[in-house]
Formats: sequence, C-alpha cells, structure tokens
Amino acid sequence: MPTSDNSSPPVYREIAEELRSAITSGSLADGDRVPGENELMRRYGVARATARQALSLLIHEGVVVAVRGSGVYVRAFRPLRRHGPRRLSRELWGNGRAIWQADSGQRTFQTDTVEVTEIDAPEHVARALSLAAQERVFKRRRRHLLDERPMQLAASYLPVELATGTVITEPDTGPGGVYARLGELGYGPAHFTEEIRVRMPTPEESEQLHLEPGTPVLDVMRTALTEQRRPVEFTEMTLDGSAYVLQYDFDA
Amino acid sequence: MPTSDNSSPPVYREIAEELRSAITSGSLADGDRVPGENELMRRYGVARATARQALSLLIHEGVVVAVRGSGVYVRAFRPLRRHGPRRLSRELWGNGRAIWQADSGQRTFQTDTVEVTEIDAPEHVARALSLAAQERVFKRRRRHLLDERPMQLAASYLPVELATGTVITEPDTGPGGVYARLGELGYGPAHFTEEIRVRMPTPEESEQLHLEPGTPVLDVMRTALTEQRRPVEFTEMTLDGSAYVLQYDFDA
Repeated sequence: MPTSDNSSPPVYREIAEELRSAITSGSLADGDRVPGENELMRRYGVARATARQALSLLIHEGVVVAVRGSGVYVRAFRPLRRHGPRRLSRELWGNGRAIWQADSGQRTFQTDTVEVTEIDAPEHVARALSLAAQERVFKRRRRHLLDERPMQLAASYLPVELATGTVITEPDTGPGGVYARLGELGYGPAHFTEEIRVRMPTPEESEQLHLEPGTPVLDVMRTALTEQRRPVEFTEMTLDGSAYVLQYDFDA
Repeated sequence: MPTSDNSSPPVYREIAEELRSAITSGSLADGDRVPGENELMRRYGVARATARQALSLLIHEGVVVAVRGSGVYVRAFRPLRRHGPRRLSRELWGNGRAIWQADSGQRTFQTDTVEVTEIDAPEHVARALSLAAQERVFKRRRRHLLDERPMQLAASYLPVELATGTVITEPDTGPGGVYARLGELGYGPAHFTEEIRVRMPTPEESEQLHLEPGTPVLDVMRTALTEQRRPVEFTEMTLDGSAYVLQYDFDA
C-alpha cells in the first residue's frame, strides 16, 4: 500500500501512478474497466475522497474515461496516422484520390457540414496567401469523420482570383479535390509548409468533436505553394488530439 | 449583457467567450490583466459563482493564468519555432553547432540534469532501432531550458555496439553533439522520421516543466537513420505544449 510522508507525493497520486503504470505496461488494456472507488478504498485502505481524487486525476489527464452509471475505463486509443509528406504527394491527388484516403486504409471517411463562402481575408490568412489585407477569399469549411466519429474541423482559404467560376467554390470539388483542380488551372501545389500548435479546446470545439475531458486539440496550419512558391491555398485544421499521430519524414 | 435561455449556452460560457474574443482580437494582449470576479459581477450583473466559473473555464483552457494573490492574466505566449527539417540539416551539426541553436536565435539555451546510463532496450526502443528485444542501449536523459524556463524533457537511445568507448557516452558530447560524433564514426544520420502525439502531462512532468494548468504536452519521437536506412538513434521528447510551434516543409 502506498504511504505518504513529507518527502513523498500524496497517496492519491501514488494510486494514480500505479494505475497509470498498469495501463502503460498493458496489464490494463484499451477499453478495460479500471478499479472503481470502492475497490480502490478496499485495496489501498484509503477514504473515498482519496480514491475519487486518484481517478479524477487520471480522467483529467485523459488516460481514462468515466462512463456515467457504468464506471471508469481505459481510454481506447486507436489513432489515425497522418503522414504529412506521403498523404500530400502529387501521386495521390494527381490520380484523383482524396488526401484522406492516404490515412484511412479500410476505415470509413466522411465529410459533413461543407460550407463555401466568400469573405474578406482575415489578417493571418492574407499574410499566408501574400494578399493585401481584406482581399476577398473563398472559405471552405467542413468537418471530417472517421468511422462516424468526428475527428477534425477544417477551413481552407483560396484567393478569389484563382477560384472564381471553378468547381473549387462548389461543396463537391470532384476526384482529387481542390489540389487536383488547382493543378488543372496551372496552379498545382508543389511545396507545403505545415505548422503545428497544441492547446485545450474551446467548449464549442469539444461539442463539435465530441471530445472527452482532458483531451487537447492540435492546430495544423498548412500553406500550399506552386513550383514558383506562389501560395495558392491556406488551410486551418483543428484535430482531436487523442485521435492522431502525425508523422513527418525528412532528410539531413 | 449575455442572457441565457434553453437554446443558448450558459451565461458563464458567454462571458468566457467574450473574454476569449478580446484576447484573440488583441484588445487584451499577452500578459494583460483580465477583469476579476468583482468586475465581471458588476459588468454582467451575475453572481460570484458565475464569474468564477467563467474565469476557471479560461484557466482550464490555458488561455489565462491565475497568479495567486494578484489576479488573472492573459497567458504570455512567445513560442519557440521548431523547424523540423531545417534544424536537423547536416550543415548545422556537421559544422559543430548544437541542434537547439537552430531554434533559439538570440535566446539563452541550457541543458541540465544530463544522465547517461546503459540499460536493456525497452520494447518500443528496440523496435525503433531494429534491435532484438532487451539488447543493450545507452540512454541519454536531459532537460532543456530556454531563457531559464524548462521547455523539454528528452531521452535518446543509441545501440551499445555503436557508442561504447566513444564520447557519446559522456555527458558532454562536444561540438555538433551526438550526430556529429555518429558522422565521425561513419554512421552520420541522413534521414529522420518524427512522430508527434499530444496528451495531458503527468503530475511529474508538470513539475519538471513548470506547466500551468490547462497545458498539454507534445510527445515527439524521432528516429535517425543512415544513408543505408540503418537506425542509429531514437529520441523521445516531451515538450511544453504552450512553448512550441512545430514547422515542417515538404514537397508534393
């Protein structure tokens, strides 16, 4: 049984650490039920408040998930591997495949709530696209789902000059998507820059992405540039942080 | 004043949203004091509990920071741009520069608590280095600080076969670090793979990185491979998520 004195961490943290180790080592697997308050009280001889504190620490860390009226479970983590360079290779979208197909394997992809609007470019978008402040852009908003679970909120911005009167302003952009269409217009992306930040979600994002407590989001911002380094598209993505592994390969 | 009915979000969320917008738009800048409970009560005509809930939501999101006995402040965010491909280019470490120098500009970098041990390779390390299970590896642990603020915990693993009897097993590996030494041994890294995950920190990590509440960490795992694709080093990094922007450039 963990004990506490002045030099060691509080008992609830030691209990949480033991449960965390059991999860890391795999002796408690994804989706397994974690011992509840009663069992922790019995096992460690602690008060209910202490048992509850241990569990709530792990919930807050996003390691376990509380299911109302049922118990606490090891969070089932089956992340999507998002391979930055490979998924955006010309071979894919040049052959009419969706970028998401590179990630998904046999899983089911869907995009919903697609919305295309024409707006004044927000400052950071104008900067990314080398436009004058408030020049007009098309904004393509949508949500991506994997196996019916919402995974990502995204908004792409394209200069009006490039996209007006093309299928890029339609909800369905056809095989290979926006990048294939840009290619046909002579503005095919040749270079990409991605920036990654991490933060806690806003309440609205938690709702739209169905996030469990203790789940951070990844902000990925991508600029697509032509061979001549002209920026032709800027995309902001907000990813469910528990659902992704991002991979990048590069040379020394 | 925000009002609440069945169809709109609770008042504390609307207050939080207004404060968040003020921060996003810049009318409340980094390090500015955020209106306290008393002022929110006055401004919005709400109870103290509601004002407190609004502030605590923003603290939980990591948007603001509570300073005990002083007030609540917009979190000063001055992230370090970590440019994946550029910082690992052979030009840098090949010329005796530390990888961190590529990120830091004029800021002060330090590394502390360097510890080198010889251990059985943990399973995921053996897999990354293509070693048999429990083959021996050198583990180099350390903490990185920027302007005296802890930013990153890191551990690198190198096969014993490559590193034994070299300065790689010393705390100070000399100019250009481990990669320069591997190069001299004929095992210079030519390719890198980085994997990025995000999660909430453990209490120990929060202490070692001095993390504020609502701060996720980034786990970055890097494998360094020679020209012949032999893995020669594996590094696990845990980054203060509020302190970094990761950038990757690549071609279509």
